[in-house]
Amino acid sequence: MTDATAIREIGADEFERAWSIFSTIIASGDTYSYPPDLSLAQARDMWTTAPARCFFAERGGDVLGIYTIRPNQIGLGDHVANGSYMVSPEARGMGIASAMCEHSLEQARRAGFTAMQFNIVVSTNRTAVRLWQKHGFTIVGTVPGAFRHATLGPTDIYVMHRYL
Amino acid sequence: MTDATAIREIGADEFERAWSIFSTIIASGDTYSYPPDLSLAQARDMWTTAPARCFFAERGGDVLGIYTIRPNQIGLGDHVANGSYMVSPEARGMGIASAMCEHSLEQARRAGFTAMQFNIVVSTNRTAVRLWQKHGFTIVGTVPGAFRHATLGPTDIYVMHRYL
Repeated sequence: MTDATAIREIGADEFERAWSIFSTIIASGDTYSYPPDLSLAQARDMWTTAPARCFFAERGGDVLGIYTIRPNQIGLGDHVANGSYMVSPEARGMGIASAMCEHSLEQARRAGFTAMQFNIVVSTNRTAVRLWQKHGFTIVGTVPGAFRHATLGPTDIYVMHRYL
Repeated sequence: MTDATAIREIGADEFERAWSIFSTIIASGDTYSYPPDLSLAQARDMWTTAPARCFFAERGGDVLGIYTIRPNQIGLGDHVANGSYMVSPEARGMGIASAMCEHSLEQARRAGFTAMQFNIVVSTNRTAVRLWQKHGFTIVGTVPGAFRHATLGPTDIYVMHRYL
C-alpha cells in the first residue's frame, strides 16, 4: 500500500460507496457464502450495525477496499473477533488486503479482543489463505464441502485463527 | 429413551415452557456461549424464528429437552445444518439428547440439508463430545481458548461435522 491510501471507519451512510465492490465479489460466488443476490440493505445492515464496525481503504476519493470486524460470537465467546475483507478487483496486487488486515488486527486489539477468527475461508481461495497465514493466522479447522463454489461445486472451508 | 417420550416441533408460543431448562443451562456458563443473562425473548427469537425450527422432547406433559436446527450459514453455505440441544438437568442419563440428535438428523435430511455442523462444542463437555461422536460426528476443528468457561477460564472449542 502506498502512503496515499488511507483507512478509516465509516458509518451506514457511506456503505453504499462500496456496493459496486461488494456486489461484484459476492456475485462471483467463489469467495463469500453470502447469497449472490444479497441486497444493499442487507449487506449494509450486516457490515455496519453495531456491534459490527466497518472501514474503508481509500485513495484519491475512491474506495479500494472495505472490511468489517465484530465479535465472532455473543456472550462467552465475544472476546474473539471476526473479520471480513473485500478489495476492488481493479485494486488487486496493491497490498490493500494486507493493509486492511493489519489495520483490523490493531482495531481489534484496541477494542479488547484477544483473538481473531475467520469462519469461512474458501480453501480454493489460495491468495487469501496465504495472505492470512502471512499475517499470523493458522488453519485450525477444515469443514468438508461446506461452501457451494459457483464453478467448483462443494468446496472445503477453513477456520483460521490467531491470537492478538 | 423410553417409548413414553415424544419429540415434536413447537412454535414460539410454546417456547417459554422450556425456559427453566434453557436459563438453568446457560446460567452455568460451562456448555453454551450465550450470555448467561440472555432474556427469554432473545432466546425464543433465536430458537423459533425462521429459518430456525424448534422441537420439544416431552414425557407425561413435561418438557425434558429442547433442540433447534437451522442453516449454519446463509447463501452458499445453507446446505449445512446447525443444531443445538439442551436436556433438563433432572432428565440426564435417559437418552434424551441421543434421541433428539437422531430426530434432528432425520429432520435435517428431510429438509434437504446434506450435512450437520456444530460450531461451538466446548472441549471440556466430554459427555457431549462422546455423544456426538457416537452419532457420527467428527472433530474437524479446534479453536483455542474461544470459550470463557465459568470455572475453567479460556477453553478450546471443537467444530464437529457429519454428512447426512
